[in-house]
Amino acid sequence: MDSNRFQKQLDFILEIDKEKEIYRQTHLKGYKRQENDAEHAWHMAIMIYLLKEYANEEFDVAKSMMMALIHDIVEIDAGDTYAYDTDNLATQSEREEKAANRIFGMLPDEQKKEMIALFEEFEAGETAEAKFARTMDNFQPLILNDSNNGKDWRAHKIKKSQVINRQKKSQFGSRDIWEYTSKLIENNVKKGNLIDE
Amino acid sequence: MDSNRFQKQLDFILEIDKEKEIYRQTHLKGYKRQENDAEHAWHMAIMIYLLKEYANEEFDVAKSMMMALIHDIVEIDAGDTYAYDTDNLATQSEREEKAANRIFGMLPDEQKKEMIALFEEFEAGETAEAKFARTMDNFQPLILNDSNNGKDWRAHKIKKSQVINRQKKSQFGSRDIWEYTSKLIENNVKKGNLIDE
Repeated sequence: MDSNRFQKQLDFILEIDKEKEIYRQTHLKGYKRQENDAEHAWHMAIMIYLLKEYANEEFDVAKSMMMALIHDIVEIDAGDTYAYDTDNLATQSEREEKAANRIFGMLPDEQKKEMIALFEEFEAGETAEAKFARTMDNFQPLILNDSNNGKDWRAHKIKKSQVINRQKKSQFGSRDIWEYTSKLIENNVKKGNLIDE
Repeated sequence: MDSNRFQKQLDFILEIDKEKEIYRQTHLKGYKRQENDAEHAWHMAIMIYLLKEYANEEFDVAKSMMMALIHDIVEIDAGDTYAYDTDNLATQSEREEKAANRIFGMLPDEQKKEMIALFEEFEAGETAEAKFARTMDNFQPLILNDSNNGKDWRAHKIKKSQVINRQKKSQFGSRDIWEYTSKLIENNVKKGNLIDE
């Protein structure tokens, strides 16, 4: 064992513990508290595995799961950017790129490169693995919020069009899940959970 | 899309949200609060990927990661059993088997069977995938606790022999990590974090 190499890996592993303290806007089922990034990533990875049959294309499930597990590590430095916060969305990629370099930069060089490549592939959303992982990144908070009768949307006075604008990209990963999502959105409009302008 | 099948999958996915509220004895780095099972599983899965080079044998990394992600789902019903709680350890497998049947039983039949088989493989600890996942199940709380200067051990008045008894099984997955672990334990005995009887 190369102890210098192992120490770098351990330092990174302990550094990412901070992801457990990055809280999102979405609440857990039952609305007791907000969800954190580590919990969201854990949930997404399991969903990728269990819902893989609904993907538009064949894809490497393990790679897509690993993308899900690491995609929010940058938020340790860059913070969580709420899906409907336009000001913060404008600076998000610059903040996240800097964060990726610092945090993944703690790893041995070839692992740093591998993790940054995986993160960038997720962000670009062009490969089958990234498309399905991004569909789950949309779908996971959607079903939690729906289970809480849209309380997160109501708290932020979110409009139907905003949710459609974000969620419609789910069709690139799964037409089936986008179809289900559309119905779920309509249902929440009917219940008054989303503003129909 | 078979909507009955999809509904079963969704029900399961929402049910396991409860894993985010199962708290362990281990505290996060910085000792702010206890860690929950979903966070622990997320951390373990990333560690399996990044530390795979230290495994004794070649193994299927994706399978081992999926084991890590799902291995504590049974604790939604069975509760967390502290590694040094002898009374609860005696009834642990019975409680967990019942839980596995109820929770994984929410999935479509072939997914239920697949998840129970994966969980049982982890528990048996005989395959290379299970052995490495179990090594990470030991190593993840160990390094968190060490980063907190052994505060969890001190709070429970844990003896060196108890930690060795649990951690020595890590050698089945990784002799390198067990060697590192032995030194870390000695170091914590020296600091008075573990009782040397």
